[in-house]
Amino acid sequence: MQNKKTSKRKEKKELVADWSSLIRVFIRPENEASKNILVKYMRPILFGLHDFLNQHVGVTRKVSLKDMSTCFTNSIINEQPEKNLDSLITDLIENIAPHAVNIASPYFVGHMTSAIPFFMVHLKTIVTALNQNVVKLETSKIVSVLERQVLAKMHRLLYRQEDSFYDENIQNPNTTLGCFVEDGTLANLTALWAARDNLFAPREGFEGVEREGILAAYNAYGIKRCVVLVSRLGHLSIRKAGGLLGLGNKNIIPVDVDNNNRIKLDSLNNIIKDIKENEKNTKILAIVGIAGTTETGTVDPLEELGNICAENKIHYHIDAAWGGPTIMSKKYKGLLKGLKLADSITIDGHKQLYMPMTCGMVYFKDSRYMDAVAYHSTYINRPGSVDLGIKSIAGSREANSIILDSALKIMGTQGYALLIEHGIETAAEFAQEIKNRPDFQLITEPQLNIITYRICPLRIQQKLAEAIPEQRKAINQRLNEITRIIQILQREAGKSFVSRTTLISENNLQEEIVVFRCVIMNPLTDITILGKVLDEQKKIYKMILPEDRL
Amino acid sequence: MQNKKTSKRKEKKELVADWSSLIRVFIRPENEASKNILVKYMRPILFGLHDFLNQHVGVTRKVSLKDMSTCFTNSIINEQPEKNLDSLITDLIENIAPHAVNIASPYFVGHMTSAIPFFMVHLKTIVTALNQNVVKLETSKIVSVLERQVLAKMHRLLYRQEDSFYDENIQNPNTTLGCFVEDGTLANLTALWAARDNLFAPREGFEGVEREGILAAYNAYGIKRCVVLVSRLGHLSIRKAGGLLGLGNKNIIPVDVDNNNRIKLDSLNNIIKDIKENEKNTKILAIVGIAGTTETGTVDPLEELGNICAENKIHYHIDAAWGGPTIMSKKYKGLLKGLKLADSITIDGHKQLYMPMTCGMVYFKDSRYMDAVAYHSTYINRPGSVDLGIKSIAGSREANSIILDSALKIMGTQGYALLIEHGIETAAEFAQEIKNRPDFQLITEPQLNIITYRICPLRIQQKLAEAIPEQRKAINQRLNEITRIIQILQREAGKSFVSRTTLISENNLQEEIVVFRCVIMNPLTDITILGKVLDEQKKIYKMILPEDRL
Repeated sequence: MQNKKTSKRKEKKELVADWSSLIRVFIRPENEASKNILVKYMRPILFGLHDFLNQHVGVTRKVSLKDMSTCFTNSIINEQPEKNLDSLITDLIENIAPHAVNIASPYFVGHMTSAIPFFMVHLKTIVTALNQNVVKLETSKIVSVLERQVLAKMHRLLYRQEDSFYDENIQNPNTTLGCFVEDGTLANLTALWAARDNLFAPREGFEGVEREGILAAYNAYGIKRCVVLVSRLGHLSIRKAGGLLGLGNKNIIPVDVDNNNRIKLDSLNNIIKDIKENEKNTKILAIVGIAGTTETGTVDPLEELGNICAENKIHYHIDAAWGGPTIMSKKYKGLLKGLKLADSITIDGHKQLYMPMTCGMVYFKDSRYMDAVAYHSTYINRPGSVDLGIKSIAGSREANSIILDSALKIMGTQGYALLIEHGIETAAEFAQEIKNRPDFQLITEPQLNIITYRICPLRIQQKLAEAIPEQRKAINQRLNEITRIIQILQREAGKSFVSRTTLISENNLQEEIVVFRCVIMNPLTDITILGKVLDEQKKIYKMILPEDRL
Repeated sequence: MQNKKTSKRKEKKELVADWSSLIRVFIRPENEASKNILVKYMRPILFGLHDFLNQHVGVTRKVSLKDMSTCFTNSIINEQPEKNLDSLITDLIENIAPHAVNIASPYFVGHMTSAIPFFMVHLKTIVTALNQNVVKLETSKIVSVLERQVLAKMHRLLYRQEDSFYDENIQNPNTTLGCFVEDGTLANLTALWAARDNLFAPREGFEGVEREGILAAYNAYGIKRCVVLVSRLGHLSIRKAGGLLGLGNKNIIPVDVDNNNRIKLDSLNNIIKDIKENEKNTKILAIVGIAGTTETGTVDPLEELGNICAENKIHYHIDAAWGGPTIMSKKYKGLLKGLKLADSITIDGHKQLYMPMTCGMVYFKDSRYMDAVAYHSTYINRPGSVDLGIKSIAGSREANSIILDSALKIMGTQGYALLIEHGIETAAEFAQEIKNRPDFQLITEPQLNIITYRICPLRIQQKLAEAIPEQRKAINQRLNEITRIIQILQREAGKSFVSRTTLISENNLQEEIVVFRCVIMNPLTDITILGKVLDEQKKIYKMILPEDRL
């Protein structure tokens, strides 16, 4: 932990903020010796952090969160400098990195955050060294042009429109194929924002919802409610968007899923029919399809959803934050059939494009769709300008397009395909392994590379099958408790990490089932490692229930 | 520009995406030779980009945007890798960097994007190498704790609450002192989101606006309109927030400013009075004070605004994205008097905290204020957890808190104070210089470090003073045209850069006045450099109007 006293004593006398030393940090050195020092600092950054993290997954030193937080209770900023860069890097490596999470470990299979190729660190450093601000051409110039290009590349990957479409749009400042946003949440928000503003467009006596607000919009269109339909495995950001946009998050209607965690089309159709017939005052803003649910990695029937949206003239958004890059695998892109029917698509660069935190994107089929959300000002983003900030929620933005464009050049679609295929195929192997082990129960068959399961000995599985609802409920509650404890103990032991979530059983009891959730995206994660993860879970299970008295 | 053909030919044969080479980019090398290569790549990144940029401000090679964009019209992603890291870095340095904008030049004084200390590049690289995701503790651990600490440090700087307040809140998972967001726009949006949800909180028969939406909220509270009051120099993000949140951006009411570009308190009071007396159906959601307007760097009378908000029980938001760090200067912090009265404050790290793109923040006086916008899910951000993602618009987020915390340690408040003071004092000097030059007219006296002026020879200034409105208007239109042309020509020449904006004259004609806008934040920008900027503008002026026939 931070050893504040000694380091402070040592440095305090030397470090004083004065103009001449301040100026020096703004001038990049011209002489070789100083340059060498700055390059040298990159060595511990590239490898020092990693060496520490390499040894463990979670917490390398057994310091509890509570103990850790007691070292971070000083709220005063020093008047004079506390550290120079050298000692600061050392401090971060020795005192912070060991308590960070080694998300790069192949044993870290709990979340959608994983190892990234080492060149990504170089690419991000380039972005920072250039420090362009993409909000406007005057602070980004060529990067704005490059961003438009890579957005078109991704658009083409997703939508596969004609050459002429891209020729017309790729560098056309009046159209927008998509935009970079902070993350998937902002991407979903942007898509629904644009959908809302297109639905409640200006009409006679009404200047549009963006200008006049929800109340005026509902009045102008003669409605009282506006809903979004999404499978109940939809990401929480859809609800959040409903709240933010003034629709009310209770109007994000969760639709039932089938045994494979895919949205139930008949339920969806019934809801649409019901609204059309019985709720004249309700408009359906959008239907959201999911290409890779957060909890189970499932892909909704995208094509069927697209047809339903087309029939009913409803905006079709696909949240492909997780599964989108599957399109690069010739072997598995069929799983995303229907993707190109979407009016808007969410993609996350920091997920299966293996980019550093944080890089979300949203794409629109219609290159004029974002016109509805354009904003101008007098000092930048003037009408007619090439400024990319005109149509985006954020203002200032770093040039993540450079990272994406470079990564696509270094990897090729084939490089990404290999990673995607590894994840899907390892997940399938892992599912088989779980089925082979009598103490474990597979809860969701993986479609992409996310898998859920729990410890539930065969004996208990049989008991569950025969139990009356009351007994069933009791057993599941007990199992839930055990899964929760095992997940926490495994995490705290720091050798491997799986996450947990709560699913709803598909039988008519609609029970809550707590499960282990395993996300396989690290190319170094293989079935041997996953076997060890299971071994450890079983060991913990035996430890907390030595007599197996479930 | 990109020399695609030759480089492709050279590399295409060698580069094939295969599993073994793919795996290698995920494993950080263990042997010294490979490590050295990865460190070596940092040299061109740290200095190569800079050397190119060093020579010019804007476009170093005279390639027009249109010509440039013709090189970026290929929308196809290669199946096989196009480049390796080495050739990619070379390509970026030789073909991209020269066409980027040298925002780090002391002659680049046009926008709020400027030079950053070189150590910021190292700090960002650390954040990327760790690649923690701050949305949840399980992917960030110690960083969540560190983030809480630095948020408290900044909160204390802004609000100066008692020790006990910080002791109670700094590591209390149930409270929120602020949060990191993408930029100032997201910060303003977050503040108004929280304000909206606190204003339309749940009450008997109503579950709150977040849950039920704007229409239900207005019905529950018996209103038809909800407005935000802000000076007409307010940032466009306030309007955008009004649009996004469903209030309608026309309900962001611009309030007149005085001769010094500060919000007119009597106008504000009149609006409030008028709404209270005549618009029973309208609620005032918030008053926004500005600490450093984007166009003129002016600070509103923050204390008086605070008193008005307190009297009328209105949420008081201060947009201190630009001017906030002035609080670190003992000499000038008086300019922000009243800052601590704000219910919420926007700060931008990538502005006067000299952090890399992009890092916004929002702070709340009341540590329970953000409870109104909490979101939970079953796999992360469970109720009661320490996860920072519970109360924020974004989900996944990079750990910019590490950069801010480190920068504060390296700089001390005194280091920042020196930078701030340099900007303010150089702006004052520059204003004097403009006044001394008979061809120039100072439009706004700088209060912080932003200044606006135009070319308007003394002769014309006198003519304007005596002119009847019709003539005045004609002269100003001509001057506007000239300012526009000079700004563009100076930008294209690439030696220096000032921006331009359009202000409204304070006389009763309310004319549009196009001005040069100069933002002085680079510590290497001094009065000599600024003098040269004026020289160049005059030279361009003489060139386009050789006979001075204005």
